[in-house]
Amino acid sequence: MAETTSRPTPPQTLDPDTLRNMDRYWRACNYLSAGMIYLRDNPLLREPLKPEHIKNRLLGHWGSDPGQSFLLVHLNRLIKKLDLNVIFISGPGHGAPATLANCYLEGHYSEIYPDRSEDEAGMRRFFRQFSFPGGIGSHCTPETPGSIHEGGELGYSLSHGYGAAFDNPDLIVAVMVGDGEAETGPLATSWHSNKFLNPIRDGAVLPVLHLNGYKIANPTVLARIPREELEALLTGYGHKPYFVEGDDPEVMHQQMAATLEQCVGEIRAIQQHARDNNDPTRPRWPMIVLRSPKGWTGPKEVDGHKVEGSWRAHQVPIADPVTNSKSLKLVEAWLRSYQPEALFDASGRLVEELRELAPKGARRISANPHANGGALCKTLDMPPFRDYAVDVRKPASAYTSPTQVLGEFLRDVMRNNMTNFRVFGPDETASNKLTAIYEASGKTWLAAGDPGDADGGALSADGRVMEMLSEHTLEGWFEGYVLTGRHGLFATYEAFVHVIDSMFNQHAKWLEKAKRELAWRQPVPSINLLITSLVWRQDHNGFTHQDPGFLDVVTNKSPDVVRIYLPPDANCLLSVADHCLRSRDYVNVIVADKQPHLQYLDMDAAVTHCTKGIGIWDWASTDQGAEPDVVIGCAGDIATMEALAAVEILKERFPDLKIRFVNVVDLFRLMPEHAHPHGLTNRDFDSLFTTSKPVIFNFHSYASLVHKLTYNRTNHENLHVHGYHEKGNINTPLELAIINQVDRFSLAIDVIDRVPKLRGVGDHAKEWLRGQIIEHLNYAHAEGIDKEEIRNWTWKS
Amino acid sequence: MAETTSRPTPPQTLDPDTLRNMDRYWRACNYLSAGMIYLRDNPLLREPLKPEHIKNRLLGHWGSDPGQSFLLVHLNRLIKKLDLNVIFISGPGHGAPATLANCYLEGHYSEIYPDRSEDEAGMRRFFRQFSFPGGIGSHCTPETPGSIHEGGELGYSLSHGYGAAFDNPDLIVAVMVGDGEAETGPLATSWHSNKFLNPIRDGAVLPVLHLNGYKIANPTVLARIPREELEALLTGYGHKPYFVEGDDPEVMHQQMAATLEQCVGEIRAIQQHARDNNDPTRPRWPMIVLRSPKGWTGPKEVDGHKVEGSWRAHQVPIADPVTNSKSLKLVEAWLRSYQPEALFDASGRLVEELRELAPKGARRISANPHANGGALCKTLDMPPFRDYAVDVRKPASAYTSPTQVLGEFLRDVMRNNMTNFRVFGPDETASNKLTAIYEASGKTWLAAGDPGDADGGALSADGRVMEMLSEHTLEGWFEGYVLTGRHGLFATYEAFVHVIDSMFNQHAKWLEKAKRELAWRQPVPSINLLITSLVWRQDHNGFTHQDPGFLDVVTNKSPDVVRIYLPPDANCLLSVADHCLRSRDYVNVIVADKQPHLQYLDMDAAVTHCTKGIGIWDWASTDQGAEPDVVIGCAGDIATMEALAAVEILKERFPDLKIRFVNVVDLFRLMPEHAHPHGLTNRDFDSLFTTSKPVIFNFHSYASLVHKLTYNRTNHENLHVHGYHEKGNINTPLELAIINQVDRFSLAIDVIDRVPKLRGVGDHAKEWLRGQIIEHLNYAHAEGIDKEEIRNWTWKS
Repeated sequence: MAETTSRPTPPQTLDPDTLRNMDRYWRACNYLSAGMIYLRDNPLLREPLKPEHIKNRLLGHWGSDPGQSFLLVHLNRLIKKLDLNVIFISGPGHGAPATLANCYLEGHYSEIYPDRSEDEAGMRRFFRQFSFPGGIGSHCTPETPGSIHEGGELGYSLSHGYGAAFDNPDLIVAVMVGDGEAETGPLATSWHSNKFLNPIRDGAVLPVLHLNGYKIANPTVLARIPREELEALLTGYGHKPYFVEGDDPEVMHQQMAATLEQCVGEIRAIQQHARDNNDPTRPRWPMIVLRSPKGWTGPKEVDGHKVEGSWRAHQVPIADPVTNSKSLKLVEAWLRSYQPEALFDASGRLVEELRELAPKGARRISANPHANGGALCKTLDMPPFRDYAVDVRKPASAYTSPTQVLGEFLRDVMRNNMTNFRVFGPDETASNKLTAIYEASGKTWLAAGDPGDADGGALSADGRVMEMLSEHTLEGWFEGYVLTGRHGLFATYEAFVHVIDSMFNQHAKWLEKAKRELAWRQPVPSINLLITSLVWRQDHNGFTHQDPGFLDVVTNKSPDVVRIYLPPDANCLLSVADHCLRSRDYVNVIVADKQPHLQYLDMDAAVTHCTKGIGIWDWASTDQGAEPDVVIGCAGDIATMEALAAVEILKERFPDLKIRFVNVVDLFRLMPEHAHPHGLTNRDFDSLFTTSKPVIFNFHSYASLVHKLTYNRTNHENLHVHGYHEKGNINTPLELAIINQVDRFSLAIDVIDRVPKLRGVGDHAKEWLRGQIIEHLNYAHAEGIDKEEIRNWTWKS
Repeated sequence: MAETTSRPTPPQTLDPDTLRNMDRYWRACNYLSAGMIYLRDNPLLREPLKPEHIKNRLLGHWGSDPGQSFLLVHLNRLIKKLDLNVIFISGPGHGAPATLANCYLEGHYSEIYPDRSEDEAGMRRFFRQFSFPGGIGSHCTPETPGSIHEGGELGYSLSHGYGAAFDNPDLIVAVMVGDGEAETGPLATSWHSNKFLNPIRDGAVLPVLHLNGYKIANPTVLARIPREELEALLTGYGHKPYFVEGDDPEVMHQQMAATLEQCVGEIRAIQQHARDNNDPTRPRWPMIVLRSPKGWTGPKEVDGHKVEGSWRAHQVPIADPVTNSKSLKLVEAWLRSYQPEALFDASGRLVEELRELAPKGARRISANPHANGGALCKTLDMPPFRDYAVDVRKPASAYTSPTQVLGEFLRDVMRNNMTNFRVFGPDETASNKLTAIYEASGKTWLAAGDPGDADGGALSADGRVMEMLSEHTLEGWFEGYVLTGRHGLFATYEAFVHVIDSMFNQHAKWLEKAKRELAWRQPVPSINLLITSLVWRQDHNGFTHQDPGFLDVVTNKSPDVVRIYLPPDANCLLSVADHCLRSRDYVNVIVADKQPHLQYLDMDAAVTHCTKGIGIWDWASTDQGAEPDVVIGCAGDIATMEALAAVEILKERFPDLKIRFVNVVDLFRLMPEHAHPHGLTNRDFDSLFTTSKPVIFNFHSYASLVHKLTYNRTNHENLHVHGYHEKGNINTPLELAIINQVDRFSLAIDVIDRVPKLRGVGDHAKEWLRGQIIEHLNYAHAEGIDKEEIRNWTWKS
C-alpha cells in the first residue's frame, strides 16, 4: 500500500453494537469467500483441518473479496435504513466469492439452489461447487443471483451500471470498479457516462473505485499516482470523490458508514432537486475511492513474503496446504481467525442477530428483480410495421434508403415506448439515416449546451437516442439496459462493429448459459445490432471502412443465441426489425445499408420471404419451376442488386438459359438443421440449390463464410461464392464491386464459365462483359463520377 | 464554440514579418485542403470558378484541417529554430488534407510522387487524386509520406505516438488528439502511457488535444465540460495542460508560438534533468489544448446555417456548387479569401519566402525517416534458437511449458537488442510463464514505487517489458514501435485478443497497402502476437476465457500479410518464433500454451517440420508409407496430444489399422496455393490427406475454420473436423476436451465410425470408449482432481 493511513477521527456513525455486528457479518462473508476457495469438507471447521478437507485444485481469487464484501455489508445497512433499491455490479474480475457469500448469507442462494441450503451440508456443497468441475465459475457468472455482470473480460462494469440505471429512477446501481479493470480503455471512457444520465428520469450510479493496489502481477496505475492526481482525474470525469482509506477495520467501518451515507444523501438531494424543479442540469455525482489492502484480513505473510497488501494475495494466498503441513496450519489459523463458531449456529446457519442485518425479500441485493431483468420486462408496444411499407409496384424500379424507412418505424416504436426503449449509435444515427427517430426523441445530452445546438442538434436532456463516440460504452449501456429488462437497437458502421467483437462474444456466452441452463433467469430482450454503412458503399471512405467480417465472429457463437439477417430491401428490413425487436435472448445482427437502394418486394412478399428466410424469386428466375441450368444465389443488398443485373444481362444474351434466382435473408438457413435451429434440411436445401447444377452465389461479406456454413451440403462442390476479398480504396461503387468480382459483369462471366451449355457459345458475351469492366474502370478513373453511377439501372423484365 | 475568447494580451513571440509569413503559410495549407476537396481543375483559380472545375462527387473532411495545419505551421517554426526531430500523428479521423497539404508544401510529396509536382499541373493532379477513384483516401493512409497513423478507425493516435517515442530519445512525437476520438475507450486510457515513458532513454510525446467542438453530428464531450473539469482531467492524466483558445488568427498565432515554445522548453528541461542526473522520476509532461472553431477560416454561414464553429463544417461545408450558382460563388469567395495568387508563384510553386519556413531534408515532418521506419530498422541480433531446445529423446514422454522455454529464448533476444526490442503483455507476462525475460529486463514502471516492489515485482524505470491492463494500449504501442522500425512480441490471453480485433484489422490493411503498392515504404518488422492461455486450459477460468475465434478474423485479411502458426510443442515454438521475429511486414499469430505439455520433436525434427509447415509424423503413423485406412490430422498442442492418444488407443485395439498421422503447424498450408502463398498445391495436399480416405482432423479452434480453408480440396467430403464448439464451464482439462469432442475417446469413436473396415468389428471398442468418457466425467465431478489429470499419459510405442 502506498498510503494506508486512516483519517484520525472518523465520525462515529455506527453505534458499538451495530459496528460489532457489521464486522461479524463481514467476517462471515470473508470466511465464506476463503472457504469457497479452499474447502471441500469440514465447512464450519468443526474438526481440525486435514488435507482431505482441502480441494485437490485450489482455484479462485481472494484478493478483492474482502473489499467487495466490505462495501456490500455497508450497502445492506443503508438499504435497510433508507429502504433503498440497490443492485451491485462487481467489476474486479474474478472476485465472485464476495458476491456469492453475500447472496448465500441473504438466504437467496438457497432459495434458488435448494441443495445449497443454509446448513452445514448446504454450505459444504456451496463451497465445493465453487470453481469445481460441474460447479460454478469464479466470476459473477449468470448462475450468480443478483448479477448482471460477469466480468470475465474486464472493462464494462460502469457502462453496464449506467445501462441498468437508465429509466429506473428509483434504482441505485453500486458499481465496484477494480483498479485493474480501470486501466482498460472501455472502463476509462465509461466514466463519461455521467454526461448521459438524467437525474429526473434515470436512477443513480454510485461508482466505488477499489484501490486494491495490485493486478495479477503488477501494481495498478491508479493506486500509484499521487492522491491529488487521482482526485483531479475523478473530478475531471465529473465526479465528487470521497476517499475511504486504511486497513483498521474498526476505523474503516466508521469511515465507510459515514461516507456511504453522505453519498446516498447527495444522490437523493440531487434527484429531489432535479425532480422538484424539473431541472436536469448535470450534477456532480458523488463517488467513493476505497483504498484497502489487497487480500485484507488474509494471511499477512507466507514463507517470508508479504501477502496481504501485495499482488501475492491476488489468487490463492497459500498454495500447498494439502502437501505442506505448515501451510495447512496457516490456512486453518486464517480461517479460524473469522471465528466461524460465533457466526453460524449449530445447524450451520448464520446466527439470528446477523441475519437481521440483511435486507428482506426483493430488497436483498442478491434478489433485486432488476438483476433478473426478464422478470420486469414489459413487452414493447409495437406499431404495425406494415404501415411503413415502401410502395413497390415493380421490382427494382425505384430507390429508397432502407435505414431511412426503418427510422420512421423506429420513431414510432420509440413514441409508443417512451420509458423502456432506446436507440444507441456512435455519433452516427443521422449519418446512418435514422434521423426520423429524432421526431420522437432527441439525443441525450447532459453536458453543456450552446445556443447553436438549436440548429439541427436534436440534443436534449430527456432524449432517448444515445450517442457517444465509443462503441464500447454504447454496447455496455445497451447490455445493461436489456439485462434489466428493457429494449433497444444499436446502429453502427459495419467496419467498426469489430471494436466490440469481444463484448459481443461475452454477451452471447452469458445469454447461452442463462437461456440453456438457468430456468430462474427470465428471458431478456435481444441485443439488436444494426450493421450499416456497409462495405459496398464505403467506396468513398476507403479501405479502413471496408470490413464485413463481424459475421464470421457471430457464427462462432452458440446457435441458441445468434441470428443474422441480410434483408435485401426496405420492406424486408421492416419485417426483420419487427421480428427482432419482439424477440428475447438473442443477439440479432441485421445487415442493412443507409444508401438508397433498389426495392424489390412489396410488403406481403417481403413478409413471406422473411418468414421463410430464404426463397426463390420467381419474377427474377427463368426456370419456370423446372430444373435450372444455373442457380444464382445472393445475400445482402448490393449483392442482390448485382446478381439481378447479371440475370438481366444473361437473359438478354441467352434467352434459353434457365436461371433460378435464390435470395437469402436469414443467413443461418444455409446451415444444416442439426447445426442451427434455423438450418434447412438437406432436402429443402437441395430443392433450392439442386444437387448438381452450378450455383453462383453473390455474398455481402467474405465469401468463405458461405462455404463455412454450407460445406457439407450435397451440391457444395458446385457452389461458387463471390464476396469481399480485401480489395478497396477510393472507388466508385461499381468499381469497388468489380475489383472484388461481385459485380454483374463478373457474375455473368462466371455463369458462362460454369454452365456447360454456354461453353463456346458464350465466348462473345464474355468478351463484351470484359469490355464493360474495362470501360467502367477507365471511366471511373477519368471522370470520378458520383455515387449515382449504379443507380441508372432498373429491372426491365 | 462554448468559449472563443482569447487571452487578452498574448506574448509577442513572433515578430510581425514572421507572423505574417506563418499566417500566409497556414493560408496556403488551408487553400490546398479546401482545393483537394473541391477542385478537379483550375487549381490556382487563375480563371473564374466554373462548375466543370468542381469534382463530380465532393468528399473529404474540412472541419479539423485548419486546426491541424495551424499546429503544423508552428511545429515547423520550432523544428527550424531548435533543430528538432519531430514526427506528427494526426488523430482526428479524416483530416488528411492538412497533413497532405503540409507534405506538398514541403516538396516531399513531389519527391515521392513526381507527377504531383510543385507547379500548376502537379497541383491539379494533387487535388484531383484526393478522394477520387484510383487516387488516395481521406485519411492519412500509407500513401501519405510522414504518416504512421491512418486514423480511419479512431482511438489509437496517442498509443501510436508513445510507441514511436520509446527508445528514440531525441524524437518528439506531436500527437493531435481529436476531441471525437478522445471519447473512445482506447484513447481515454492511452493518456496513462506517460507512466511508461522514461525521460532518459525515450523520446517525448506532446499531445495536442484539439477541441474542435464537434463530431459528425454532435458536440464532443470534452468541449462541453467546464474548463476546470477538463483541466482537472488532464492533470489527473498526469499532464500539465496549456490552453490555446480563440479564433482570431493573429492572436492565436502569438499564443501558439509562445505555448509551443514553452512546452518544447519544458520537454528539453525534463530530459536534460533526467539525463544529467540519471533520474527517471516521472515528470509532469506538458500538453496543449487547442480550442479553435471547427472549419476555422471556412464559410461562416451557408443558407442561414452557421457553418464555421458548427458540426456542419465537419465534412464538405458547401454541398452543391456544381448545380447551384450561389454555392459556386460561395466556394469561390472562400477559396479566394486565402489569396492563392499571393502564395504561389507563376509556375504554381509556393513562393520562396514561404518555402523558407519549412524545415529542410529529413527534418521535414513529411520526410522524417522515423515515419518510414523500415528505413531505420536494424536487424535483430538473434541468439541461436537451437540453444534453447528441449531434449526430446522419445516423443511424448515428458512435459514442458512451451512458453517457459520461449521465455528463455526471448530473454536472450532481449539481452542482445536492448535498444530496439520490447515485449508487451497485459499484466500477464508472468502468468504466461515468460518470466525468464525479467532476467534481461524488468517491467517498465514510472509511476510511484513501493518498498514491497522489491519482492518479485520486477518493476524498473528502464524495464523493456511493457505491461498495462489495456490490450488496446499495448497493441497501439507495439504498432507505433514497429512502424518506426523496431521489433517486439505481444503475448496475450487467447480469449481477450478479440479486444484488439479491429486494431489487428486496421494494421493488416495498412501493411497490405504499404507492402503491395508503395515501394518507397521500407518493410517494417512484423507484429508478432503470441496467443496463449489457450481455450483448452481455461478449464479453471470457465466459459468467458474460452474463445479461440481470433484465427477466423485473421484469415479474412489479405494473404500477403497474415500468417498463423500452431506449434505443437516447445521446440516447434522456438523455430516458429525465430522465423517470426526475423520477418518483416506480417502479422504473425503464434498459438502456444503456457501450461506444461508433452514434447514430441527434437530440435532437428522440429525445424524440418516447421519449415514444411505440415507433415506426416511417421513415428505416430502405422501406414508404413502405404495408402492408409484413415488420416488423423491435427493442429494445436492439446489437439495434437489427444489425436496421438487416440492413435494409441486405436493401435492397441486394431493392430492392422493403417493410420497416417499429419500435424499442421502453418495453418495456411491448408489453403489452396492460389489463395495463399503458403498454400499447398492440390497434389501435395492430396498426397497427405489422400483423395478418398476418411480424415479425422482435431483442431485447436472452431472446427468450421478448417472447412473454410479446405472446402475445395479433393477429399473435402471425407474431412471431419473436431474443434471447440462453445461448450465449457469449470471443467477438468479432459472433461473440457470431452464435452467438445476433441478428446482421445471421441476421436477414436469417430475413426471407428468412418473407417469401413471397422464397421461392426469396432462396436465393442466403441462401447468401451463411451464407458471411458462416462467414467472420466463422473470422476471429475466427484473428485474435482487437478490439472495433472491428463499428464499421466505418455506415448507407449
